[in-house]
Parts: sequence; structure tokens; C-alpha cells
Amino acid sequence: MTITITAFERSPDRGRGLARDSRVRWALEEVGQPYKVRFLSFQATKEPAHLALHPFGQIPTYEDGDVALFETGAIVFHIAERYAGLLPDDAKARTRAINWMFAALSTVEPPILERQTAVIMESDRPWHKERLPLVDDYIRVRLRQLSARLGDADWLDGAFSAGDLTMVSVLIRLKSSGLLDEYPNLAAYVARGEARPAYKRAFAAQLADYNASRQS
Amino acid sequence: MTITITAFERSPDRGRGLARDSRVRWALEEVGQPYKVRFLSFQATKEPAHLALHPFGQIPTYEDGDVALFETGAIVFHIAERYAGLLPDDAKARTRAINWMFAALSTVEPPILERQTAVIMESDRPWHKERLPLVDDYIRVRLRQLSARLGDADWLDGAFSAGDLTMVSVLIRLKSSGLLDEYPNLAAYVARGEARPAYKRAFAAQLADYNASRQS
Repeated sequence: MTITITAFERSPDRGRGLARDSRVRWALEEVGQPYKVRFLSFQATKEPAHLALHPFGQIPTYEDGDVALFETGAIVFHIAERYAGLLPDDAKARTRAINWMFAALSTVEPPILERQTAVIMESDRPWHKERLPLVDDYIRVRLRQLSARLGDADWLDGAFSAGDLTMVSVLIRLKSSGLLDEYPNLAAYVARGEARPAYKRAFAAQLADYNASRQS
Repeated sequence: MTITITAFERSPDRGRGLARDSRVRWALEEVGQPYKVRFLSFQATKEPAHLALHPFGQIPTYEDGDVALFETGAIVFHIAERYAGLLPDDAKARTRAINWMFAALSTVEPPILERQTAVIMESDRPWHKERLPLVDDYIRVRLRQLSARLGDADWLDGAFSAGDLTMVSVLIRLKSSGLLDEYPNLAAYVARGEARPAYKRAFAAQLADYNASRQS
């Protein structure tokens, strides 16, 4: 059964690993599953063929001949349920790891997405300069709380899990903002994620794909 | 095993059912599980005792003597996994229902939360009037795509599932904005959710709790 995911043929982040296919690549590397990538132009993601697979016209999607999924969090969860390595065997610990997946996407990521929207969509608006520090403060509320919970632990709840994979992937988006550096234990947490061999393979693969796209 | 959730002792939405405990109440009503509610003041949600349970200082939380969870999406998923009624038995259909849960929280809800932040946190800012229509347009992108996918179906993928419960709960937040009315099939979809006996029981329970708080 071949796993095929979609990604941008030329990632708008210029190979920094911020596009969401990186999360799925990372999950697949953690569980040791090979995958193929089908590349799409930005335009192609908005066309009927792709919208049939992904109603919101985004990447990545996931197909394994059995199921077709379109939402990154659900794809990572599906991989974690199907293959060993991303969720604890113990039922209670598994439930708590899933709790952290949802927390990353539903509580920590929204203000980070709001910052991204401000930078991409509103940087030429007259309010941008004055408003961005407010958005940064919305993010700081979450970072401060997350930092307090993490403390000096390596991962959020015992061993590395899909919860950490998701949370680290969400926080990585903040690297260029400098906000992460205000919370040294969170910066170290992200660095621990990036140091995992599976993350390195995933990052290298998306960067190689980006570099190949520039030569074509 | 008693299920205990937390909720605001006086919901800031004045009983309109928008606080996230409503989603958990609804899920518990769908699967026919009784529950108790522990009420907290807004101040109490920021204190150490509650932060030990919910690191982001929000409601609801969920405790059943076996696990303690703090993220609404994960609580709904846990209920759906544990009790029959919210996830299909068929493995592929189950995976797709989970996909819709993540889509609701991770793709549809963020711009809706951004609108909420604008209204609550930035209504006295000089840019508010000019910016709100932009935020509404971010939301419209998602509503248009969701409306196209739903078409004239009753639910997102076959029978009602935790995916629909989550998506309807996310869309309900838009009712007062008028945006939902621009997409009649989405407005009808939300109305179908609200017409479910389990939703009605959950809504009535939170409203009764709000009314009781005003008399105390």
C-alpha cells in the first residue's frame, strides 16, 4: 500500500519546512513509512480535481489506497493510530497525547495563524505596525502558559508523542518572530524536536524538493 | 464512574450556548451519559488549582476518574471513542469523521476566533471598523468552501457524527454576525444540529445553569 501525500511544487516558505506537509512527512519518518509526494502548483490547489480531495484547497492530503484525508491534524493522527511510534500503548497516556494534539491545533496555533494572516494579508494596512504587537501579546499568553506547564521536562507528557510532534510543528512557525526566544524552555523544546533523526529526514526531504523545483 | 466537567459559573455569553462546555454537554447527551458540572468563576480559571488541570486556564475540563482532559476537541473525541453514537463503526468512515473534527477546529474555526478576538479585544481600536470586514472575508473563504462541499447533504459524510457536532458548534459562533445567512445550506445545517434532541437538552442545561447563576 503506497502512501501518497500532496505538497506545493514550490513551497512559499522557500524550504524552511513551515508548510504543513512537513508535519506529515515528520510523522511518516517517525513511524518508518515510505511515501510519495504529488506536487501541486498553488493554482492547482484551487481547481476542482484537488478540491474533490481537499474541500479547503490546501495541502497536504494523504491517500493510502484505503482512505483519503485532507486535514493535517487528522492525517498525523491516522498515521499515529495505524503505525507504532507516535502514541503510547497505555490507554490513559494515549488519551493525554491526543489531548495535546488538539491543544496544539486548537489553543496554541490560532493566535500564531492570526500573526501569519496579519503579516501576509495586512502588512500594507495603516494599522499593521501598531497592531502586530497586540497579536504578539495574544501569542505570549499561550507561550507563557505552555512554558509553565512544560517546565524542565523534555516532552509534554512522558515520552515523545504525536502531541509533541504537533506542538513543536506549531511553535516552529514562530522561529523568525523571535517570540520563542523569550521562553528558553520552549525554544529548547523545539530544538529537541528538530534534533530528532525523523525530523531531520523530513526537513531534508522537503528542502530537496524545494531546491529541485527551483532548477526545473 | 461519574463524569465531571467544568464550566463558567456565569457564562459570558449570557446563556447563548457559545461557551465550549456546550460542545461537551452535547456530546454527552448524544451518547446518553450523565454528567456533573463544577462551576468556576473567571478568576478561578486562572488560579493554580485549575491550571493544574487546564494549563491554558480555560473551560471545560473533563474528569471521569480514569482520565483528566482539558481540550474540548479531545474531550469530544474521547467521549466519541468511549461510547457509541458519535463515530461510525466502519473504520474508513470513522477516520473521515475524525478528519472533519480536525477540519472544524483547525481550518474553519481559526478565522472565526480571529473575529471574536477583534470584537472582544480590539473594538475600541481606531482600525476596528475598517478591519472587521476583512476578517469577515477571511471567514467567507472557508464558509464558501464548506458550503460547496456540503451541498444539499444533511451531514458532512453520511450519518451525523462527532465531525458534524464539532463543525456545527464552530459555526454556531457566527450566528449573531449574520455571515451564516449568506450560505443557506450552512444555516440549514446548523439548524439541523440545533434541532437534535441531544443538542436541545445540552442547550437547556447550560441555559438553566446560567439562569440559576443570576439568581444566586
